[in-house]
Formats: sequence, structure tokens, C-alpha cells
Amino acid sequence: SIDADRLLGRLRNLGQIGRDSDGRLVRLAGSDNDKAGRDAFVAWIRSAGLEVAVDRIGNIFGIWRDDANTNHTPVLLGSHIDTVINAGIYDGCYGVLSGLEVIETLQASGFVPANPIAVAAFTNEEGVRYAPDMMGSLVYAGGLPVEEALATVGTDGTTLGAELERIGYAGFEKPGFLKPHAYIELHIEQGPVLEREGMPIGAVENLQGISWQRVTIEGEANHAGTTPMSMRRDAGHAAARVVTFLRDRARRANTPTVATVGCMSFEPNAINVIPSRATFTVDLRDPDEGRLQAEEAALAAYLKELAAAEEVTISVERLARFQPVAFDKNIVELIEDAARKRGLASKRMTSGAGHDAQMIARIAPSAMIFVPSISGISHNPREHTPDADLVAGANVLLDVVTRLSAQ
Amino acid sequence: SIDADRLLGRLRNLGQIGRDSDGRLVRLAGSDNDKAGRDAFVAWIRSAGLEVAVDRIGNIFGIWRDDANTNHTPVLLGSHIDTVINAGIYDGCYGVLSGLEVIETLQASGFVPANPIAVAAFTNEEGVRYAPDMMGSLVYAGGLPVEEALATVGTDGTTLGAELERIGYAGFEKPGFLKPHAYIELHIEQGPVLEREGMPIGAVENLQGISWQRVTIEGEANHAGTTPMSMRRDAGHAAARVVTFLRDRARRANTPTVATVGCMSFEPNAINVIPSRATFTVDLRDPDEGRLQAEEAALAAYLKELAAAEEVTISVERLARFQPVAFDKNIVELIEDAARKRGLASKRMTSGAGHDAQMIARIAPSAMIFVPSISGISHNPREHTPDADLVAGANVLLDVVTRLSAQ
Ligand SMILES: NC(=O)NCCC(=O)O
Ligand SMILES: NC(=O)NCCC(=O)O
Repeated sequence: SIDADRLLGRLRNLGQIGRDSDGRLVRLAGSDNDKAGRDAFVAWIRSAGLEVAVDRIGNIFGIWRDDANTNHTPVLLGSHIDTVINAGIYDGCYGVLSGLEVIETLQASGFVPANPIAVAAFTNEEGVRYAPDMMGSLVYAGGLPVEEALATVGTDGTTLGAELERIGYAGFEKPGFLKPHAYIELHIEQGPVLEREGMPIGAVENLQGISWQRVTIEGEANHAGTTPMSMRRDAGHAAARVVTFLRDRARRANTPTVATVGCMSFEPNAINVIPSRATFTVDLRDPDEGRLQAEEAALAAYLKELAAAEEVTISVERLARFQPVAFDKNIVELIEDAARKRGLASKRMTSGAGHDAQMIARIAPSAMIFVPSISGISHNPREHTPDADLVAGANVLLDVVTRLSAQ
Repeated sequence: SIDADRLLGRLRNLGQIGRDSDGRLVRLAGSDNDKAGRDAFVAWIRSAGLEVAVDRIGNIFGIWRDDANTNHTPVLLGSHIDTVINAGIYDGCYGVLSGLEVIETLQASGFVPANPIAVAAFTNEEGVRYAPDMMGSLVYAGGLPVEEALATVGTDGTTLGAELERIGYAGFEKPGFLKPHAYIELHIEQGPVLEREGMPIGAVENLQGISWQRVTIEGEANHAGTTPMSMRRDAGHAAARVVTFLRDRARRANTPTVATVGCMSFEPNAINVIPSRATFTVDLRDPDEGRLQAEEAALAAYLKELAAAEEVTISVERLARFQPVAFDKNIVELIEDAARKRGLASKRMTSGAGHDAQMIARIAPSAMIFVPSISGISHNPREHTPDADLVAGANVLLDVVTRLSAQ
């Protein structure tokens, strides 16, 4: 079994790195805080005696190679260590540090794997500063040219490539340089299902489709006191209509569709000026591709109608679009089996969040292991998973890796 | 008659002072740009040979005193030169520069007034950076203690008093030091009425009530992909509901009530995080105090209902509250009379915007003159009034001042 104290200690340690002046954990991709987190991770992989490699998109790898390895494609473990704004300490980091923990445990046990075993921390999984999300693993899997990814302009006007150079993580390896034999990602669920059903382990068999758009509405600035309600072209009001439309539609539907407006800004953003412009993001998700397309179409039709009714101009920019992904059936079964052997109940489930595994699934058999999130809270400093569940998940990962790496 | 070229030249000149790197006119109260505008105005009043005085809240006065004045309380003209964000060049500046123009015209004509005549530029009329609006004139009229006004914290965290000191406009005079005999403010209408009715002059007999509030909604940050619609406490969605509630109610009502949400911000403002907090402003106005109170009560009731339905916490902070104001009947008649004698059609009307005149009306007989705004557009760089209307308005002001100042 893994060394629980070492894993939990590192998790807490990393969770203190990259806090802002208000004490909030903010390790946005390419930031100084991200650098601090990366430096800590690299120090740990070095201290484990692993080979360190960084690719052009900044993905970090810790590789355990042995002359005895007969198979040269590695079993890859990992996740990401970038975070959202005011994040919890588990999202991503748990999978990365558990991957390292599994390797160190196997090393110490004298196990000789048939293949190298590597742990990866993928760049910019969260997509908060640079869209799309899962960018490092997407590039790694060949789904986005590295030049294009490096040229991405962030919410703060910076460029990811320049930021990676600045923090010293623009590496030299070609993304995709290690073609994995299999990829397994351990992660907190970030949703309420496992806790509600009293299940310690989720065997994740698929992941829903994700559609991200940025909508800009242009109206006309005018005086808040003198402009009759009937003469307004209020971009802010039109934006609010879209928010309520999405919510009402998703709640009425009785489907798993989720719709979120996370970012919103008004211009000129002055108390006595009717907004001339509103900009906001729309995050739409559904496990079913047909339904996700129908939701996108419904939004597009509503925006058209709204533009005419409110005499505003509406433009839409696509930030990310990923179809639902099915994971590898054999690995899902290995996970269920490993859980059973450890006496842990497990449940097959769908991931609501996007994960690096959905990208690596394009180039290698992949699957995910989930552990419960208390009250389903994530992307929030109150994100929490009990220690026992964290340890159980890492042990299941250990067992799956052992099976996949047996000579 | 006034010197049209001098007035229009100064108006255009001042309109170029205080532009940001995008070319937008932004002279927010107490800013460097405000200082640049103030410096230009002070230079003009000095070149007219007027006495310059600045009071503790930064109101600037140009005073024409003459030993022949038998009455020592001045006829006061004026308005403000601070602006909104991305403003037009007329709002406020037109009244200030016309006041100076009228004094210079009277001086040149050899007219000997019975009283001093003074022009004022009041601090922070717009209220965009520091609430409430009309702050300088409110303090001048004794409606707000000067210490309290100077301690006001702005949208950018600065303090008005510190900013006035920084830009060199924290003066020594006690606000109210000149008790006006009468106050007349010439202003662009900022609304569509005069243009629609083909009237060059508005004789403003009253001004609607203004209610400004800041609403903060606290929900719970959570993951956009994993949190079912039914389990969300989405502060951004609740804020959008308030925007549509206000709009629907005001449009249905068939009353002159106007409701505007000009500022909006979400936290953490990340694409895949359900907003934990939304903060926005509500600007409610109505010429009838009873109706304005009813609108405020309806909003309060809605917020209560919404807090319960959406499981969010809502708090409200009052930023400004002014009752409707009736102007001085005699001055309104003088305005109508002066317009008639110049062959200009005029219309009695209500001001939709707040103005310094509404504050000075507390301490002196006051009224306003309006000129048309093309398409009713204001608080917008496209704000425009034809030159002929600007000149006509200034001449009506000249004639009213002449009547009020006759020996
Ligand atoms: N796991 C996770 O939070 N990923 C971020 C991408 C997403 O929004 O789903
Ligand atoms: N005249 C003018 O725009 N005043 C600003 C205060 C208000 O919002 O009415």
C-alpha cells in the first residue's frame, strides 16, 4: 500500500503554494504561482530519482525507467496542478501526487515493471486564464498544434507561450514524445454522486461533452435617468435575459444538461449609464452529443431572437468544444476489480468535469478513478475529500498500475 | 448676445482634455484628468479677471464683484466638469462655460449688476467614482457634512478627500460660503423630449427623485460541469433575475419610472465556476415620490423572495437617495419669457437627470434651462447638441441673468 502520510503531506504542502494576498489559492496556468507549484513538484520527482522531462507546452513528466523494462511505452499516470481562482487543494493535485506516490511505492517494494511508469502534470487543465481547458493534454494528444496553443491570448491579455518562457517551463520535448501504453487518472469527483450513494470509488466509464462560448452583446450607452424604458438598447439587460433563458431551459429539461454563466462584465460599468456592452461566457455540458448540439442550437436561436427584439448586436466566439468521450472498458474493469479486492464498493459513472484523461484517450487506452467530494463542492476553497477516501483511491491506483505493468 | 465662437471653442477645447489611451473622455471626479479640466477652467476664469475661490469639497468659483453691487449675495450660474466613463463633451461643461461666457459678455457690455455674479463648477456631479452624485453641490447646500463627503471611498478604493489633495483642489473656503441670491443652470436635456417636439428651449420646472442602491448576492462557488442545476446556489443567475425583474416591471408599468442596472460584477468570474458572488447597482427614478417609494419596496420584496427561492444571501447598500425637487416658479417664468423675447419656442418640463440645481434649490431660488440632445443620447461619446441650440440656450441664460441682476 502507498505511504499515506507522504501523499497527504505533499497534498497539503502543495495546497499552500500559490496563495494570493487574501489567502486564496490561485495557481492560474503560466503565472508566478503556477511556477511555484511546478517547482515543488519537480523537486519531489527529482528526490524520487525519476527522470524529469518538460515538453514545449510545459507538460512536466517524471519517468521511472529500468533496464529491465521489456516494453518501452510507459504506463502514464497524472493530472494537473494549475487551479481555478480561489480553488480547493485537491482538484488535479491529488492525481498528480498519487501518481508519484504509486511510483515511489513500487520502487520501494522492489517491483520490476514490464514498462516505464511515468507521472505527468499537464499544463492549463482548468482553462480559466487560457481557453480551451485541458490544453496541455490536448496538445500532447495531437488535438491542437503546439504553436497555436502557445499563441493563445488569456483573459488578462498575456500569451501562454510568453508566460511559460517567463516562468521557465517552455520545455524542449515534442508534445507526444512518450506514447503511453495506458493512462489512468485519479481525481476527486467534484460532484455529489459518490457521497450521496455512499460509494468510496467511482470507475469512470465516460465523460460528458463540453461547449464553451464567449458572447458579446453591443447595445447603446445612454443616460439612466433620461432614457425612457422603451427607447433603450441595453446590452446588460439582454445579457441577463440569456442567463435566465439558459437556467430556465436547463431546469425545465429534466435531462443532465448543465448550463453556467461564470464570467460577466458590463461596459462602461457606471451606475448611471445604460450598458453599451456586455460580455459573458456560456459553459454548456451534456453526456449526449446530440443533446449538446440541440442545446447549442437553442441558444443560437434565442440569441438571434433577442438581438432582434432588443435591437442589440450579438456575436459569439467559440472557446472550447469537446465531444463526450468513452473510456477504455478493460481499464474500467481493472478499476472495479482492484476496488473489490480492497473491499471498497465502486460505481460506474460519468465525469461531469473535463479531465486530461479525455484527451489522452485519443492516443492510449485510458480511464479514471474518482473519490467522493464532500457535498459535491469543488472549484471552491471548501472542496474536501476525507483522508481515508484519498488513501483508498491511491491504493486502487497502485493496484491497477501493478496489474497493467506486470511482466 | 454672447460670443458664440468663444463659447463653442472652449467647449471643444475642454472636450479634448482628459482622454484615455483609447481616446475616450474620462474625467472622473478627483482624477488626474479631472485636474487637467479644472486647471483649464481656472485659467479661463482668471483670464476673465474674476476672483477664484475653491471650497473644501473642491467646488470652484469664479466671482465677478463690483464696488457698485448693492446686493452682496451673488446670482450663481454653473454646473460641473467631471464626466462619466466614455462621456460626451456637453454634459455639465456646457453650463459651466456658458456661465463664464455670460459674465464676460456682461462685463464687456458695461452692464453694472445689482449683485455679484459667479460661476461654479461643482465637484463630483456624476457620482460614477464616488456616490452619491451631485456631491459637491449637496455639501455646498448643507445636505451632507463635508468631512463625510471627503471620506467617501470610491469604486477604485480611493478616498475623495485624498484625491482632491493630491490634485491640488482641496480648497479652504467653507462650503456654502457664498449664499446665492438665485441659481440658474443651463444644461443639455440628455433625453429625447425637446428634439421630438421641435422645441429649442426647455424651462425645467422640476426634477425626478433618484434612488441608487448597490446589491450584493452571495451564493456558493461550485463546479460548472459536475453540479446539477437543482443543487446550485448561483449568485450570477440570481443577479440576472433582478435585472429582468426591474426591466419587466418598469416596462409593464406605463409610468415614467426608469430602472437601470449599470454596474455588474461576478466572483470569482471564471468560466467553469458557478459565481459565488454578484454585485450590481440599481438606479431607480420617478418624478413622483410615492411611486418611487413603491418601486423601492417592490424591489426589496422581490429580493427577499429571490433569496429564499435561490438559497442566496442578499444585502443592499444605499448609495444615494434624493426626493423629487420643484424649481422656483418665478425663475421658470423668467426663462419662458426670455425665450419668447428671443423668438424661441419653449416647453415646461421635468428633468430626468440629477443636477446640481436640485441641491442648490435647498438654499436659493433655482431653476434650469435645457437645450435639445440629438436622439436623446447622453453619457455616450455620441452626445450632441447643434451649435445654434447651444448659442440660443446661452443667450436665454444671459437674458435671465440680466433680469435677475438689474439694479
Ligand atoms: N477537473 C476540472 O475541474 N477540470 C476543469 C475543466 C472543466 O471545467 O471541467
Ligand atoms: N446630468 C447628469 O448626467 N447627472 C449625473 C447624475 C445622474 O445620474 O443623473
